[in-house]
Amino acid sequence: MLGCGNVGSAFVDLLRQRRTTIEARTSVNLQIAKVAVRSLNRERALKLSSNLFTTDPLAVVEDPDIDIIVELIGGVEPPFSLVRRALELHKPVVTGNKALLAEHGAELFAAADEVGVDLLFEAAVAGGIPLMRPLRESLAGEPVRRVMGIVNGTTNYILTQMTDAGISYETALKQAQELGYAEADPTADVSGHDAAAKAAIIASIVFGVVVKPDDVYHEGIAEISAEDIAVVNRLGFVVKAVAIVEAFASPKGSGPEITIRVHPALVAKEHPLAAVRDSFNAVFIEGEAVGDLMFYGRGAGGRPTASAVLGDVVDAATNLVHNTPGRVGTLAAATIRPIEELKSAFYICLAVTDRPGVLAQVADVFGRNGVSIQAMEQQGQGDRARLIFVTHESLESAVQTTMAELSHLAVVLDVHRAIRMIGGEG
Amino acid sequence: MLGCGNVGSAFVDLLRQRRTTIEARTSVNLQIAKVAVRSLNRERALKLSSNLFTTDPLAVVEDPDIDIIVELIGGVEPPFSLVRRALELHKPVVTGNKALLAEHGAELFAAADEVGVDLLFEAAVAGGIPLMRPLRESLAGEPVRRVMGIVNGTTNYILTQMTDAGISYETALKQAQELGYAEADPTADVSGHDAAAKAAIIASIVFGVVVKPDDVYHEGIAEISAEDIAVVNRLGFVVKAVAIVEAFASPKGSGPEITIRVHPALVAKEHPLAAVRDSFNAVFIEGEAVGDLMFYGRGAGGRPTASAVLGDVVDAATNLVHNTPGRVGTLAAATIRPIEELKSAFYICLAVTDRPGVLAQVADVFGRNGVSIQAMEQQGQGDRARLIFVTHESLESAVQTTMAELSHLAVVLDVHRAIRMIGGEG
Repeated sequence: MLGCGNVGSAFVDLLRQRRTTIEARTSVNLQIAKVAVRSLNRERALKLSSNLFTTDPLAVVEDPDIDIIVELIGGVEPPFSLVRRALELHKPVVTGNKALLAEHGAELFAAADEVGVDLLFEAAVAGGIPLMRPLRESLAGEPVRRVMGIVNGTTNYILTQMTDAGISYETALKQAQELGYAEADPTADVSGHDAAAKAAIIASIVFGVVVKPDDVYHEGIAEISAEDIAVVNRLGFVVKAVAIVEAFASPKGSGPEITIRVHPALVAKEHPLAAVRDSFNAVFIEGEAVGDLMFYGRGAGGRPTASAVLGDVVDAATNLVHNTPGRVGTLAAATIRPIEELKSAFYICLAVTDRPGVLAQVADVFGRNGVSIQAMEQQGQGDRARLIFVTHESLESAVQTTMAELSHLAVVLDVHRAIRMIGGEG
Repeated sequence: MLGCGNVGSAFVDLLRQRRTTIEARTSVNLQIAKVAVRSLNRERALKLSSNLFTTDPLAVVEDPDIDIIVELIGGVEPPFSLVRRALELHKPVVTGNKALLAEHGAELFAAADEVGVDLLFEAAVAGGIPLMRPLRESLAGEPVRRVMGIVNGTTNYILTQMTDAGISYETALKQAQELGYAEADPTADVSGHDAAAKAAIIASIVFGVVVKPDDVYHEGIAEISAEDIAVVNRLGFVVKAVAIVEAFASPKGSGPEITIRVHPALVAKEHPLAAVRDSFNAVFIEGEAVGDLMFYGRGAGGRPTASAVLGDVVDAATNLVHNTPGRVGTLAAATIRPIEELKSAFYICLAVTDRPGVLAQVADVFGRNGVSIQAMEQQGQGDRARLIFVTHESLESAVQTTMAELSHLAVVLDVHRAIRMIGGEG
């Protein structure tokens, strides 16, 4: 084991609890040989012999008596060097490190493939949810069209609280921090960065392409107001922060063209993703033959994540005994369609001065840009009325132009918000 | 292939479509060698050479050039004899036949285990949903407490229609039949028989025990009225037909004690199972370490089911090449706790004559039987008022006695309905 924090400790506990059952079912006997930690002096609740601990992770990787490396340090370095070294030494690696995989996945998958050992990472994308194995194995023969995931528990908790209690983003964030669902610096979660890394890993498994996290278009949730949520609620939607990876039919012979993005989205209340509440995660898959699938569960937390790590370790051990590592295969370069070229239905909210002729002026801007309107609703009257539009599927660039032009109309006080819709037409 | 109906045809199509991808990913080359059918004269849309067809399934099983048997005939015989023979010949078998597995699973698992070949059945429980592989592999180290499944698409479709449109059971059933979601004789679905067989298979995989379908307590949905659904809707619940398998902590050394049952249940609207609509299926798993998980998707239909069959065939082929079959392990006999000894919270609806003192008389019956009341509501007044009770978790036998005694009270016109609740306290 490299690293022994929250997940590592839970893993040690769970392994102790389940060792006999695992041995009975799979004939592999799992023992923790060494645990590399940052400091030997820290008090640990773990019942592990103190001579198992070391501060030298490389020595653990290179120890010839150690068969499998479990990397739970987190971050890109030192894990990248350590995992690469382990694979060089033909040692299977289990990791839950999304940053590492999102940044160096292609190189590490290729290294694992070359020497024919496992690199398993069930815990990296959606914590305890068994997702990677079904995607790789059960759906190996399935043409997947689109994957939509609620893969960040912090933002889902915040949005759920805003929806249920009608509280502001700031209040909900503070609650999440108090409960330990959000970090003191919540930027990585609320900006969509964390979900973008997970989306990149999903793209590699589902569509076999390399995507760098920086290539993932992402919008955070900080701009969403309790008022937005209340308005869309009346229209039959909830707001969710969603990671979307979708493949387009690509010209014969060329690699797959995909869209990959993270942003708040309107989800119809009848859609299964709408029922994913609090800090839960879910990944919704649209397959050509299998139809719609969803995998739901805990995306974080010591014990759920440790459960996923243990599943991988059992798998790696079994494969090691039988000499049958799984294969990710080599990844192709992805062609990413820019967000401007995507089509979505939009929810658009404007603050306007309620005068005769306002709607005609506003509708004219939509019309000239080729954005057709599916539904419109006026809320309030007088100096600050609200106009709410739901568009048909429209080109993103056309909607952006529409919004820019609307903001220049004298009668439009504020182009309050545009949120993409998924499901239905979207 | 044994059998070539709806699923079989979809399987042939899907295999043709995906053969190249599968070969690239797994290095196995899948070819359909023979297809046993009942009649050679039937017109088939399939583009398969006519000399592949035969009416002799045993000859297909025994053909030395055939490596894997895909059984899609359905029913217990002849599949049981054919699958047993295939396993004797050390041939892996893929089947989607729930009746076969529920009736003879233990014997077939043991036979597969003894010769060390795969017996795979992803399609048998929840159609296209990858469920068996995650349960067997990802959760191999996970202590599962309870599994609750919406595993019958017909009843879920009927209940969804009754909820959304306020129509009667009879009307919804007729709709389902017209749409092909229900058979002309819907008994197996609406009585809970079909779900009971699936529950038996889940018990064998999750808890490693043998359960015969006849040992599964089941209640159908025909008694549920649109009025029941409307009333519980106001209380924050939906009615779902749920299969439940749950393990109790068992005395040291003894085998697992479980409950296994299929019945309509009240599900809180916030529970993810409540969002499983129309003919979709879902299986909700409560694990000790991993927490709550749910797998959602199409439980039936040619293409979704064929997708699951294809995943299994790829798996069986890969395992055959590497000589690494999966292991179900041997099953233990199950101790099944009778329904009378289970505790559930109940929704109970009575028709009463609305006179002073009625509630006291009714409440006395609950109290004397040790059934404590969590909430009460009276609807309507006069000669036929309705009293609705939600109980705390209570022993089933005590609730049954309560209902029998209530029916003897002069003021109680009708003990209209009792429905168990899940989630929350239940």
